[in-house]
Amino acid sequence: MKKIINNPHDVVPEMIDGMVRSYPQIVNLINNTYAVVRSDQESMKGKVGVISGGGSGHEPTHAGFVGKGMLSAAVAGQVFTSPTPDQIYEAIKAVDQGNGVFMIVKNYSGDVMNFDMAKDLADADGIKVKSIVVDDDIAVENSLYTQGRRGVAGTLFMHKCIGAAADQGASLDELESLAKEILPHINTIAVALSAATVPEVGKPGFTLAEDEIEFGVGIHSEPGYKKEKMMSSKELVSELIGKLDNSLHLESNKQYAMLVNGMGATPLMEQFIFTKDTLDKLGEKNITPAFMKVGNLMTSIDMAGISLTLFELADKKWLDYLNYPVKTIAWS
Amino acid sequence: MKKIINNPHDVVPEMIDGMVRSYPQIVNLINNTYAVVRSDQESMKGKVGVISGGGSGHEPTHAGFVGKGMLSAAVAGQVFTSPTPDQIYEAIKAVDQGNGVFMIVKNYSGDVMNFDMAKDLADADGIKVKSIVVDDDIAVENSLYTQGRRGVAGTLFMHKCIGAAADQGASLDELESLAKEILPHINTIAVALSAATVPEVGKPGFTLAEDEIEFGVGIHSEPGYKKEKMMSSKELVSELIGKLDNSLHLESNKQYAMLVNGMGATPLMEQFIFTKDTLDKLGEKNITPAFMKVGNLMTSIDMAGISLTLFELADKKWLDYLNYPVKTIAWS
Repeated sequence: MKKIINNPHDVVPEMIDGMVRSYPQIVNLINNTYAVVRSDQESMKGKVGVISGGGSGHEPTHAGFVGKGMLSAAVAGQVFTSPTPDQIYEAIKAVDQGNGVFMIVKNYSGDVMNFDMAKDLADADGIKVKSIVVDDDIAVENSLYTQGRRGVAGTLFMHKCIGAAADQGASLDELESLAKEILPHINTIAVALSAATVPEVGKPGFTLAEDEIEFGVGIHSEPGYKKEKMMSSKELVSELIGKLDNSLHLESNKQYAMLVNGMGATPLMEQFIFTKDTLDKLGEKNITPAFMKVGNLMTSIDMAGISLTLFELADKKWLDYLNYPVKTIAWS
Repeated sequence: MKKIINNPHDVVPEMIDGMVRSYPQIVNLINNTYAVVRSDQESMKGKVGVISGGGSGHEPTHAGFVGKGMLSAAVAGQVFTSPTPDQIYEAIKAVDQGNGVFMIVKNYSGDVMNFDMAKDLADADGIKVKSIVVDDDIAVENSLYTQGRRGVAGTLFMHKCIGAAADQGASLDELESLAKEILPHINTIAVALSAATVPEVGKPGFTLAEDEIEFGVGIHSEPGYKKEKMMSSKELVSELIGKLDNSLHLESNKQYAMLVNGMGATPLMEQFIFTKDTLDKLGEKNITPAFMKVGNLMTSIDMAGISLTLFELADKKWLDYLNYPVKTIAWS
């Protein structure tokens, strides 16, 4: 393992320290936690707080999406480990303005349990909390750390829409309805060329041969649905779009948002080639996404690979939410 | 080589196609070239055009920095190969509004020659063109493709300042003076943990042992100034800040901008830990940068490594230029 770190035990606090000191105009640390809150507290006045979080190792997720128009705060756990209920609760308190707090949780057993316990702590204090559990990964039902489907990169579309609606003054109940409406329309599927190496573990979570890839791998190196020999970008796209089509029933009279997400070690060059092939493949169905985003947004440390998210914009307002201006480290 | 590509010969046109189709609201292709121009042509009216470019493989550089407030256009060559004079000339024509065009060129023999030839073509057509050659890499004098020092990530600070000044109406002569004033104040130094693999070559540009790093490597895998055993982030920072201090003479009564730049395969987690250590080290000298940026901004395909740029803000206006709002794919 060759990584630019100090003691592997300290990667999370050191990373968060680096982040909040680089962008003090956007995020501040919540004292004695690994959670960050937006610096622009003014913009939260009178609004529902929106928080998210999860294990570290997915940077810029989640802290990179904290800021006006998106998340109010984000809580980080140790690498690939859920944040603790007390830290989540600190984030809830930091953003509550008396109008309640909405939590966006990715579907992992630890996250679901710990965010629920934080909600109980808040309830006892009279803070109203509601939440959505995102399960956009269509690769497999149930998984290493998950009952049902996993939550992956499509979660960022949830952050964006809920963050925009909250900034426009939506109530806690309205946010919950919106999140429930949106959820089934966001689907993601990934392919891995290599696995992530957790610093404290020191070796990759699995191994693939020099000419091998795995479809459907999760963002913590959870197994996918099949291994294949390496193939061209066009062939990868064909496989992934096939799966998304089965699930979302892609049609030219519907509108879509697209997210091409690099897993950490896959260069933008490859992400944009994959994007071209995806747009060509969608073009065969006369589909041009109404909103597109490409980059390393929900990573898996140093994993090589890519995920493709399609979000069916069943309501015209959702596109406005995606285009709503934000001020964050990683979404512009 | 396991890369998400199709034919290795086609990576540049396919990548650029993916980029312009993902962000049509920001960049458009200049027909029959690998050059992109900002979509918002209105914002260029009456202003000096600002262009840059160079070999591909450094994404999001350069096309990712095209947009209002930054570059007017960017020209891409094949991977690690200078763009041709005729394509640079097309970019000059696409952005000239009668007030001339300023070119920001990184110091590589091929780039310097080809941008000069494009200037001659423009001169013959009556388009006034001036330029700056950026040589911010303090690692070595002369190099594989360079007379003098190489141009690397610090070039982005030049893009930002010149782009802002141009947007505010600076004349061609004013931009030239500004660029010359700024140039010696931008210094960069890098460390590599692995080399980049050019798709058409199929193997890394050099090899390092499992426990080895190389200081001062360039963005095309040009040799650095020494190999060492892998060390901690704090020790890396100490070496790199030492070199920058020798060159810039860091002082607490001066203001600085800082850029921590990932080389393509180094995760944000490591970049932010390195950032923390850099801020701690600068803190020992009572220096807190007035402007900071962290991310994969001038990459070397899939190289693992990091570069550190310090820019001494000798003129207060330069900080305003850095903070000037832009609308690009990769700088926000």
